[in-house]
Amino acid sequence: MEYRELDVNSVISYLKSVSKVMDYFGGDDLKADEIGDGNLNYVYLVSSKSDVSKALIVKQAVPYLRCVGEEFALGRQRMTYEIRALTRFKEISPEAVPELYHVSEDMSIVVMQYLDSHVILRGGLTSANRYPDFSEHISTYLAQTLFKTSSLFLDSTSKRKLIDEFNSNTELCKLTEDFVFTFAYMENETNDAENVKNNPLAQKLFADMEFKKKVLDLKYKFMTASDALIHGDLHTGSIMLNVDETFVIDPEFAFVGPFGFDIGALVANLVNNYVHHNIVTKDEEFKDYLLETIKDVLELFSEKFLKLWQSQKDSALLINGYIDDETASNYREKFLKNILQESIGFAGCKMARRVFGVAGVAEIRGIEDKQMRRDAEELVLKIAREFVMKYEKIEKIDEILEIVRSAG
Amino acid sequence: MEYRELDVNSVISYLKSVSKVMDYFGGDDLKADEIGDGNLNYVYLVSSKSDVSKALIVKQAVPYLRCVGEEFALGRQRMTYEIRALTRFKEISPEAVPELYHVSEDMSIVVMQYLDSHVILRGGLTSANRYPDFSEHISTYLAQTLFKTSSLFLDSTSKRKLIDEFNSNTELCKLTEDFVFTFAYMENETNDAENVKNNPLAQKLFADMEFKKKVLDLKYKFMTASDALIHGDLHTGSIMLNVDETFVIDPEFAFVGPFGFDIGALVANLVNNYVHHNIVTKDEEFKDYLLETIKDVLELFSEKFLKLWQSQKDSALLINGYIDDETASNYREKFLKNILQESIGFAGCKMARRVFGVAGVAEIRGIEDKQMRRDAEELVLKIAREFVMKYEKIEKIDEILEIVRSAG
Repeated sequence: MEYRELDVNSVISYLKSVSKVMDYFGGDDLKADEIGDGNLNYVYLVSSKSDVSKALIVKQAVPYLRCVGEEFALGRQRMTYEIRALTRFKEISPEAVPELYHVSEDMSIVVMQYLDSHVILRGGLTSANRYPDFSEHISTYLAQTLFKTSSLFLDSTSKRKLIDEFNSNTELCKLTEDFVFTFAYMENETNDAENVKNNPLAQKLFADMEFKKKVLDLKYKFMTASDALIHGDLHTGSIMLNVDETFVIDPEFAFVGPFGFDIGALVANLVNNYVHHNIVTKDEEFKDYLLETIKDVLELFSEKFLKLWQSQKDSALLINGYIDDETASNYREKFLKNILQESIGFAGCKMARRVFGVAGVAEIRGIEDKQMRRDAEELVLKIAREFVMKYEKIEKIDEILEIVRSAG
Repeated sequence: MEYRELDVNSVISYLKSVSKVMDYFGGDDLKADEIGDGNLNYVYLVSSKSDVSKALIVKQAVPYLRCVGEEFALGRQRMTYEIRALTRFKEISPEAVPELYHVSEDMSIVVMQYLDSHVILRGGLTSANRYPDFSEHISTYLAQTLFKTSSLFLDSTSKRKLIDEFNSNTELCKLTEDFVFTFAYMENETNDAENVKNNPLAQKLFADMEFKKKVLDLKYKFMTASDALIHGDLHTGSIMLNVDETFVIDPEFAFVGPFGFDIGALVANLVNNYVHHNIVTKDEEFKDYLLETIKDVLELFSEKFLKLWQSQKDSALLINGYIDDETASNYREKFLKNILQESIGFAGCKMARRVFGVAGVAEIRGIEDKQMRRDAEELVLKIAREFVMKYEKIEKIDEILEIVRSAG
């Protein structure tokens, strides 16, 4: 099918040709509302006129940056990678990915479950809400998706096929290379100019050569380590949840990259939220909850990843009988420690880039009181720097929490 | 054009349709001889009947392992990667790659310069011949091909395109994963069974868990590090030379892999040759020449790689203005030290696998005297083990030579 851009009317007629969607609705009295507040895509809420409880989300990419307009070209191929990632992650970790009703790479479109009783994690945490099963859910998602797309699980041929499927997600990988690992640490027109101007904190960061050299190591790892299929943008805005369920959405940045990048993104966003509460609400109990969450996520991830690996007899990396059990066990422990260390390095970059870079996060950039915002930014950069400078030496998860706790 | 297998007759009629080839010969009175002694491909020497000084090499892959027969399938796609690598390396390092007259991925065929006055480096060194410009030539080839296909030179998009071109060379990558990094260190049916049987040296190697754990790290690096386009099989049998010229041939194992693998392969094969002379000829001067060659290759490679990098303003990794000159310089030095260290790790694997693995090298496995061969194997494994156990701590090139020298 040839690509065409849909609108509130044509999206309905398009869906009428998709039997799985029609089966879901059980009738063709549908209406569509455009609800996208995103920068990139058109998002429609399509619901049944006769039964409002029946609704699906339709997401279509257009070949330009929506928030700017048609003159800012951005390949709609990003939806190709989102579709491939959603499909793959759904197979691997079904309970963490919304139900998929229809995907078409030609049309750059995906039709999926409407998460009507779920909120975005970032907002939930900023409002100091707790999600008792979140660590359990997200650690399962991380362990399953990272392990089962790696050379620790796949055979050599399947791994190369997986790389092939995602390797050309160049445009979005480049966004990360530029905005997470480069521009946010130097004078650049894409930065938050008003905040950078005459700001000693920005000058200090931009002149911090030791920090920037370490960032370069992490950037190189991001560009060249083909560990596993990663989400690529796993901040707290890419997670929707309620007390029972946790869903990971928007994997358009997906590619075969370093193990630690998704874990790092999540830790970074939890710490940014901690900083918000440290400066704005001063809610000590919720700060503790956030630190516990980080600890639980990392511990549970490690346990689950190790467990999956222990039960894996043969893979591209390790075949049965190559080494004895004790050596294999030591090898796995060390390998996992490396993943955790690298995650913290990436977490540092993902935090620091939010301060002066093009895309801020609500918890920090959204703080209205100027002095508070400045204090939050200083604290974010302090922790981020510790993470980036020390990540290779971190031995225990508690050391990570200690860095956060002692910085405030 | 649809693939068809050529023979001494049809190869001539095929070439008559290739104008660049006919221009070279300047007439159509051609004859062909099958001269391939390889395991994989058919190789024809095509020459002019009227002017015997005019000759070209035609190499065609068949979809099976030639030395076994049609029942042993091996995709002729290996020639696709050889063609792509030859073409790319010819652009980057023209003086080190034979002239290409015709390539066709459909026909799995390449027509190239006949190297009639050149010998294979392995044989030359075993006969104690010296090649005064070899270090200069090969270090230029290594520095140019590795630098100019890396993220230190290419932009992000070109790098991903390059990965795309070679990523599906799965079959040959798998051969390396299995034969260089796995089977040669454990009981396996592909090993040199006669030598393994009742051999305490084999038992010791197969039980050496610390060594094998380190090999696993290097295997993982081989499988997941997308540093640069590598030859993938740069032993001394893949180099043809005379005193004036050095050519690198047979890059069918090429893919985007770790920086250190080609350098390591070369070092491994020079050290294997050193071991041969140490045990068999006891030619002290030639042993010194081999050690000097290793030193020269590594030093010249480092200088040339650094020089290329210093003159590069922008790349996927590092854009102008991100860090100051001093920091950039420190970063490059450390990066290069990592490449050298990793090369020595790979060299250890490439040496060790030649002892009991499926494919031996003439210098070691070809030693007729049983005790001498055993001594040579013991020395190879001793040096290989030191390389693999210590590579991450090597600070200077002299330490590498010292490991070799002190082992014998």
